[in-house]
Amino acid sequence: MIDYDSFLSRAGRKMQQSEIRKMGTLLAEVRGVVSFAPGYPDPATFAYEDLAAITSDLLCAGEGDALQYGPTRGHKPLLEVITTILKTRGIATTPEQQLITTGSQQGLDLIARVLLDPGDVVLVELPSYTGAITAFRNAQAELVGVRQEADGVDLDDLDAVMARLRADGRRVRLLYVVPNFQNPTGLLIGQPKRARLLEWAGRHDLLIVEDDPYCDLYFEDRATAADTRPIKADDRDGRVIYLSSFSKTIAPGLRVAWMTAPAPLVARVEVAKQASDLCTAALGQFVVFEACRRGLLDRQVPRLRRHYQQKRDVMERALRETFGETLTWPVPRGGFFLWASLPARVNAEAMLKRAVRHGVIYVAGAAFFVDGTGTHLVRLSFSAPSPEGIVEGVSRLFATVQDELRAGQAVPS
Amino acid sequence: MIDYDSFLSRAGRKMQQSEIRKMGTLLAEVRGVVSFAPGYPDPATFAYEDLAAITSDLLCAGEGDALQYGPTRGHKPLLEVITTILKTRGIATTPEQQLITTGSQQGLDLIARVLLDPGDVVLVELPSYTGAITAFRNAQAELVGVRQEADGVDLDDLDAVMARLRADGRRVRLLYVVPNFQNPTGLLIGQPKRARLLEWAGRHDLLIVEDDPYCDLYFEDRATAADTRPIKADDRDGRVIYLSSFSKTIAPGLRVAWMTAPAPLVARVEVAKQASDLCTAALGQFVVFEACRRGLLDRQVPRLRRHYQQKRDVMERALRETFGETLTWPVPRGGFFLWASLPARVNAEAMLKRAVRHGVIYVAGAAFFVDGTGTHLVRLSFSAPSPEGIVEGVSRLFATVQDELRAGQAVPS
Repeated sequence: MIDYDSFLSRAGRKMQQSEIRKMGTLLAEVRGVVSFAPGYPDPATFAYEDLAAITSDLLCAGEGDALQYGPTRGHKPLLEVITTILKTRGIATTPEQQLITTGSQQGLDLIARVLLDPGDVVLVELPSYTGAITAFRNAQAELVGVRQEADGVDLDDLDAVMARLRADGRRVRLLYVVPNFQNPTGLLIGQPKRARLLEWAGRHDLLIVEDDPYCDLYFEDRATAADTRPIKADDRDGRVIYLSSFSKTIAPGLRVAWMTAPAPLVARVEVAKQASDLCTAALGQFVVFEACRRGLLDRQVPRLRRHYQQKRDVMERALRETFGETLTWPVPRGGFFLWASLPARVNAEAMLKRAVRHGVIYVAGAAFFVDGTGTHLVRLSFSAPSPEGIVEGVSRLFATVQDELRAGQAVPS
Repeated sequence: MIDYDSFLSRAGRKMQQSEIRKMGTLLAEVRGVVSFAPGYPDPATFAYEDLAAITSDLLCAGEGDALQYGPTRGHKPLLEVITTILKTRGIATTPEQQLITTGSQQGLDLIARVLLDPGDVVLVELPSYTGAITAFRNAQAELVGVRQEADGVDLDDLDAVMARLRADGRRVRLLYVVPNFQNPTGLLIGQPKRARLLEWAGRHDLLIVEDDPYCDLYFEDRATAADTRPIKADDRDGRVIYLSSFSKTIAPGLRVAWMTAPAPLVARVEVAKQASDLCTAALGQFVVFEACRRGLLDRQVPRLRRHYQQKRDVMERALRETFGETLTWPVPRGGFFLWASLPARVNAEAMLKRAVRHGVIYVAGAAFFVDGTGTHLVRLSFSAPSPEGIVEGVSRLFATVQDELRAGQAVPS
């Protein structure tokens, strides 16, 4: 019997499974479970008929390029459409600054490979998106957390962390942030703070990775488009690598996202992408381009805002009515997630087995913290389950927490 | 102005653009050029109407999973279909040994990341596929070439190279081969040699990466299915990581390929893929699954064999009639490529500018050699251009070579 572990690279040995993906697998295996775990868009919102018409039109017209290998940089007309989309977000760019990626996850992975050496430090929010954490860790970078306040990154803590790292002689390379409806907290970084982060990055000569998949999905009772203006919009020096995606607005199953960054950096990332997957699926890129050209995206986005806002309302109401004061959370002003604090003595990860028995799953908060804290927090996605599913799931979650608290009391502390 | 080079990782600084991809870009920029460069399938062979019907059926039925995030491992029914396909190739496996990849390029990239540390040695054929060379180099591995004979890898040279590397204390990890209609030479590794390679890998405790995109595309006048039996078919010890793809038989624009390897290795590669792109595009996977289920693939493959055999014939005839004895090549018994030797004094890379002026491009052979040789060789893809295009391209190539030879004579040697 061959010992395959002896064949693994140092990086290969250290790679860890994503907690969120683990939940996805669990979900597939357990029938009838209500899943608050993965941040999937609601399949009920997919524009099936429009997308069927688009693919049918493309293929029946014999559009060979939609089925062929394509440029690593991406389908040119789509790069131009992205330039227009960015303009509506206040970001002035040219197509030379865009690169299509196979989901934003690939963007994160390529950034990690092109910019990070083993031992380099990446600063991330506490908590932060697990997919980014894993991509940076796979490049053997060290992740160091910075506290968050209600309006995002705590600038005092950021300064303190930076001073400590520099005193220790560490090479700090990137600050990774999700300014709009952060995964997992749902928080927005305030506009004044965004300006200060940019100024801070210039002072310390760092690059900012701004991950922005939820930009368009603000809830109109709590936020405006102006609140979501990306950091990139004011990036006059070229310090921001901006990532966004069509996964949350058209469909994740096409794997079409993009990176916008200074042209010399994009050129480097393009070379890395060549060896990584040659090019993003042409069919998906052609479909997304047509969806934009035919106005589907523009029609879809306001609908999605209302749809997810209603789901957030359903979840909040159910949580309030069921849990009372036992659970607290910042009201999500957009996006897919509600970030809930359980009583401090509950360990959300340990409770997960019990939750599965009750027929509900979530992502335990610790996965999002690079400093080992956050054990009493849970990320609840309200995006995918139906309203009835949300109500039922919340009731199962309540039963789970009650059982857990009772079991905890029985154990002498 | 920010010096972005100062932000690059060691790996990022070293990454190099693929010669083939460069040609693809060139192709897009020059009108009317005949391209023998990229190994694209012929768009005239794409089953547009069948694929339109499949996507339309999937989407009109509201098949949400075709547009959603999916398991990193791949769409389960497709993993099962692949198990069946492998059986027809003599490979007995279970779905636990399969992983869907975003093109085989991703398979190569993930193998490199999971198995190679900087400085590790990968043995490759002289010449070998550039996409693999780049993927391994991006992991900072060192590539060492082994000579080829008419029936593939020269076993004596393999032993000699291995002895030298071991004597130098180098860690040799992988042997990478393309046994069926190799890219770029079009050669087949003979069946007896395949058995000896497997035995050799066991003796030296190495893994073999067997890259097999052209398996089905044998030309019936020169080869049989038995000639293409993969090394993996006789891999009783679990030493072979096998890659194959639907890119050459259904469509590359779907980016659906797969890896078959011992379950513990596949599990590691799956974890690496999570952080790399989460999952391969679901739409492409659903389309491929349906194309298999509805018999489209089975109907398509014999057609493709005839189609590409005819194109090979057109290219060979045109080359013979135009070049006479100036050009030699081994007759391709399958696949997409004809590997031609120009007179030794011609530098194919230097000649490329002249070729573009004449309206024809190819890939200069040196790109496929990790030892800096092969400067007088060219890879000519007969797969994509039309028969008329092939004839015209060969005539332009002849004019290019004539000019080059004349110009060379004018320069005192």
